[in-house]
Amino acid sequence: MTSATKLDGLDVGYDIPALPGMREGDIQTPCLLLDLDALERNIRKMGDYARAHGMRLRVHGKMHKSVDVAKLQMELGGACGVCCQKVSEAEVFARGGISDVMLSNQVRDPAKIDRLARLPKLGARTLVCVDDPANLADLSEAAVRHGTTLECLVEIDCGAGRCGVTTTPDVVKISRAIEAAPGLKFAGLQAYQGAMQHLESYADRKAKVDVAVAMVTDAVAALKAEGLDCDVVSGGGTGSYPFESSSGVYNELQCGSYAFMDADYGRILDSDGNRIDAGEWENALFLLTSIMSHAKADKAICDAGLKAQSVDSGLPVVFGRDDVTYVKCSDEHGEIADPAGVLAVNDKLRLVPGHCDPTCNLHDWYVGVRGGRVEVVWPVSARGKVY
Amino acid sequence: MTSATKLDGLDVGYDIPALPGMREGDIQTPCLLLDLDALERNIRKMGDYARAHGMRLRVHGKMHKSVDVAKLQMELGGACGVCCQKVSEAEVFARGGISDVMLSNQVRDPAKIDRLARLPKLGARTLVCVDDPANLADLSEAAVRHGTTLECLVEIDCGAGRCGVTTTPDVVKISRAIEAAPGLKFAGLQAYQGAMQHLESYADRKAKVDVAVAMVTDAVAALKAEGLDCDVVSGGGTGSYPFESSSGVYNELQCGSYAFMDADYGRILDSDGNRIDAGEWENALFLLTSIMSHAKADKAICDAGLKAQSVDSGLPVVFGRDDVTYVKCSDEHGEIADPAGVLAVNDKLRLVPGHCDPTCNLHDWYVGVRGGRVEVVWPVSARGKVY
Repeated sequence: MTSATKLDGLDVGYDIPALPGMREGDIQTPCLLLDLDALERNIRKMGDYARAHGMRLRVHGKMHKSVDVAKLQMELGGACGVCCQKVSEAEVFARGGISDVMLSNQVRDPAKIDRLARLPKLGARTLVCVDDPANLADLSEAAVRHGTTLECLVEIDCGAGRCGVTTTPDVVKISRAIEAAPGLKFAGLQAYQGAMQHLESYADRKAKVDVAVAMVTDAVAALKAEGLDCDVVSGGGTGSYPFESSSGVYNELQCGSYAFMDADYGRILDSDGNRIDAGEWENALFLLTSIMSHAKADKAICDAGLKAQSVDSGLPVVFGRDDVTYVKCSDEHGEIADPAGVLAVNDKLRLVPGHCDPTCNLHDWYVGVRGGRVEVVWPVSARGKVY
Repeated sequence: MTSATKLDGLDVGYDIPALPGMREGDIQTPCLLLDLDALERNIRKMGDYARAHGMRLRVHGKMHKSVDVAKLQMELGGACGVCCQKVSEAEVFARGGISDVMLSNQVRDPAKIDRLARLPKLGARTLVCVDDPANLADLSEAAVRHGTTLECLVEIDCGAGRCGVTTTPDVVKISRAIEAAPGLKFAGLQAYQGAMQHLESYADRKAKVDVAVAMVTDAVAALKAEGLDCDVVSGGGTGSYPFESSSGVYNELQCGSYAFMDADYGRILDSDGNRIDAGEWENALFLLTSIMSHAKADKAICDAGLKAQSVDSGLPVVFGRDDVTYVKCSDEHGEIADPAGVLAVNDKLRLVPGHCDPTCNLHDWYVGVRGGRVEVVWPVSARGKVY
């Protein structure tokens, strides 16, 4: 290969779908598109809500995996910091300058615990969840070794049936052990009811959170009787935050999807029986796709399949169109029913992904647009950070 | 942050799950694991089969997205090169030294066509599929502009109902137009029956391919009558390659999944009624995961959820174990039914992913093991190359 060939542009820049200033029509597909106006409105709205209800807002970074979006949520939405699910994600946020990072998950592997205990050296307050007293010796030893403090939350399983303890005596036992361990500090409770966030009915969701609130209220009172105050009582997602906010016991929300929305979340109903993507939250995230074959009259094939989106929560919805429908997904292709044959090759469509979190995790870039122009191109900073 | 902190190791190496020489037990999870012995046996076996049946083997690079695996398939399995689905993937393979690269897909966007037409400058024979004569002017103009040759295959839709033309007259019309276009060369036919690869019954799969063979035979004869010889008649996957190999008209196989296997493919039956992962092909790809919570007696929680695997074709299977079962998947967690409570925190399990292609696309690294030690760590070279 000659240097002339290299200068020809073959080796640079090809994997960035857009550059700032570019017209929206020139963006390479498939890629993640952010409507910056809608994103900023969502971010301000949740920030205003939390402030008005006296709640701290700790945005969930696992959803977008982006330092840039997290900083916007802190700047425009008053977020105190982020929560995330993996040590490698937390490292990205801490290195990116987020000063308050919660691992809303257990960390058990010794190598990961070592990494976790180094995080405060990056200037980030570091919180982690615990559901097993056997974890504490490892966490304590690592914190002492690195001369740092790990703030620990006891995770209550308040309905998800996954991690977390289920009784107040267990909560108290672990909390006391945290407080007694060198290098560790008892910080409060993690009680996220993940299993109800996507129930369609507002009343059904409220009923599930009522159970969580009762468990958390009991635990907080028992801890107080032991002289242990909860600085943090954290929980609440996009499908439940009004309930935790009016609970009188939670003091922190950890919503994620509200900022972007997706097709699956959008279908749940608010207290008036309206879909939450019809007023409460706007679709700010899209998967931009192009038609790349239309060899059949009533079917267009687009370039966004399983490698551009996760279909675990259903197929994407074509935004703003009721004349065409995304009906089938294979590895690299999507089939768009086009009964009237209105689509042409190279036409672009905005898809609303079925599930935003694992879809964002597939991509390297967010392309932020406003007024038909690319304004920013942000890396998906923690993409693939599964460790 | 002080430089001492940086030297402390915080900024390097953390996102590589393993290093060569490491014991298998020290690998960070979740990550993709390759059993190198099984992989090499699969690769040699398919190579031997193709050679014995006089078929070229063009391995599907979209499955593994790895230059290293492709080179092993050429070296040990006699593969002529790769096929892949996206221009950005083809660039990775061509830059990685693969000298024969087929785009088994249409390319319609002008910017992507420009990139495609530059590929031969990297030393790679470049083939691309066409299903619309309107595509040819763009392909031809780009090839002429870059002084390269694009070899074009007409894609026949032989049952998948996606891209491709469905009649012999359409095949002939496009083939003649290719041959007449400057910078383009007619190379033959692409006729991959993707929709039948996962049918369980051998007889059902054969019946579907019989239809494809009839279409292809008719097209090849009609082209011959026009003086157009097909250098390449390509198709065949892991679920169908014996049928194309005995068709008398196909001369090239484009199998992918045989090398790694997955849970969904493994369930299809061979001509003797045995699962193809019980003898025909070995599981060589695993998703290594660790137990990170066991707060419930009968349920262990592992660290591999939707961000470590695609569940479009079903949940993963725990390899070599019938006492524990992967029963539920959320973003970052997997629930393992453990009725006898045999698992402990930090235990590792090998999962066989439901669907290998989109699962591999989530990861940055393959960790290749042999004899309990890490032998190689290969990048997933074309991960995220969706353009």
